[in-house]
Amino acid sequence: MNVSMIGLGAMGAAMVRNLLAKGVTVTVWNRSRAIVDDLVVEGAKPAASADEAFEADIVLSMLAHDQAVKDVLLDSGVLARARKGVVHVNLATISAALAGELAALHAELGLGYVAAPVFGRPPVAQAGGLNVLAAGAPDAVATAMPVLEMLAAKVWPLGEDPVRANALKLAGNFMIVSAIESMGEAVALGEAYGVPAPELLDMLGSTLFAAPIYKIYGGMIAERRYSPPGFAAELGLKDVRLVLDAAEAKGLSMPQADLAEASLEMLLQGEGAKDLDLAALAEIARARVE
Amino acid sequence: MNVSMIGLGAMGAAMVRNLLAKGVTVTVWNRSRAIVDDLVVEGAKPAASADEAFEADIVLSMLAHDQAVKDVLLDSGVLARARKGVVHVNLATISAALAGELAALHAELGLGYVAAPVFGRPPVAQAGGLNVLAAGAPDAVATAMPVLEMLAAKVWPLGEDPVRANALKLAGNFMIVSAIESMGEAVALGEAYGVPAPELLDMLGSTLFAAPIYKIYGGMIAERRYSPPGFAAELGLKDVRLVLDAAEAKGLSMPQADLAEASLEMLLQGEGAKDLDLAALAEIARARVE
Repeated sequence: MNVSMIGLGAMGAAMVRNLLAKGVTVTVWNRSRAIVDDLVVEGAKPAASADEAFEADIVLSMLAHDQAVKDVLLDSGVLARARKGVVHVNLATISAALAGELAALHAELGLGYVAAPVFGRPPVAQAGGLNVLAAGAPDAVATAMPVLEMLAAKVWPLGEDPVRANALKLAGNFMIVSAIESMGEAVALGEAYGVPAPELLDMLGSTLFAAPIYKIYGGMIAERRYSPPGFAAELGLKDVRLVLDAAEAKGLSMPQADLAEASLEMLLQGEGAKDLDLAALAEIARARVE
Repeated sequence: MNVSMIGLGAMGAAMVRNLLAKGVTVTVWNRSRAIVDDLVVEGAKPAASADEAFEADIVLSMLAHDQAVKDVLLDSGVLARARKGVVHVNLATISAALAGELAALHAELGLGYVAAPVFGRPPVAQAGGLNVLAAGAPDAVATAMPVLEMLAAKVWPLGEDPVRANALKLAGNFMIVSAIESMGEAVALGEAYGVPAPELLDMLGSTLFAAPIYKIYGGMIAERRYSPPGFAAELGLKDVRLVLDAAEAKGLSMPQADLAEASLEMLLQGEGAKDLDLAALAEIARARVE
């Protein structure tokens, strides 16, 4: 099996390391070169261009946002030049609109396309423990499945329409942001009545809310430990805006998402906000005192 | 150990049954009589009045809201007539303001007072599996502890100020309402893109959000099964208003709680809303389409 990865940020690089550890030959390409060299030392094969990366049977891409996907895969013409039958697996969190465009374009060009956004931070990616949502034409999904299974604790099949996987991913990221906002407001209330945040978050996070999201972000909020960012607040705002765009396109209003956008915008106006984790949203809630 | 229970709604009666099963002699009193007779058949001793219930060493009360507490315990004069040294354990979710008043009044009257609001539905109460928050003077808490431990999977000690336990309980109920609102909006987004609610809620509820709150309410939202209510929407609105009152008293604003209040008010204007569980809040989110 001949696999490539395009996009070697923290998540993409971690996935490559996981595949290398499992004995897969991985060809890698990235716009900036340093991480390519690192991964080559670890056993990856360098591609000289995105076109060369597309010579594989399965091309994974993990690009940071819509613009990166457009720059690297669309405007460059690489998809149009790619060999028919190659299966492209898009692991990134992108807009529902672009997800739809990509699905149509791949079909038109005779390329396989699988939308496979993932839940999990880089260490989880490196351990092959992601939750992977997978949607696309059955034959493309079947081709990609052995690789997806190596990336995942579990692959969640979501049918043939790639947009469904991206919509579920956006819904999940919205729920994460919303959980952080709710912890922030609950903590602010508790603190106003003399309940320290660690006590409140430990009690709720080990009973009613005993879930990874509340434990991970609750711990950060309790300790007011917001950097270095694991999930940067900036990317959280990007995702909330994608959520609102996706909702608007269907005439749906999402007031908790509107609130999250406003709070994140306020957070990101602060100094040093670029280095803050999404968990820092709790500080906006704490600051809402007369 | 001589224990009484005042207030025999679904929660109070379930706790009495749990104590009876553990061999505790429980004297019971309630404003309406039918449930008293049922529990007497099951082994409880009836009290002819709230005063008689206060002849125990430990008096538990589980009254539905602030007004019931005021009617039964304050305006009746029963506390003023109670024997010095009796320990009163208030298990109800009440306002932070009333919690403060009760603490002061008990101290003035020479009565022990423990604020011990609980998390858990009636079947959990009957099985003795509640999470009990306990705050009050150390000697009163120590006296109550053997009974609290029989009610609880875990007793969470919260120090000497009873108001802290009530504040944490309100914060927790706020987080429950907020989680339901966020599931509702996420489901509405998913459905707009063809992802059925059971699929979305199962994926998120068994991974990132694998916690009792998301499983229990997520299941109800997925199946649109909202009655009979376990946690009635009406009581949820009452609690959100207590949250907002508690916040306002400290000059704190809680925008997610404001949103929850508005959404619950909308829900409760509908026909048959009295019979709806809090989970039905998701239907308000689903209805926010142009």
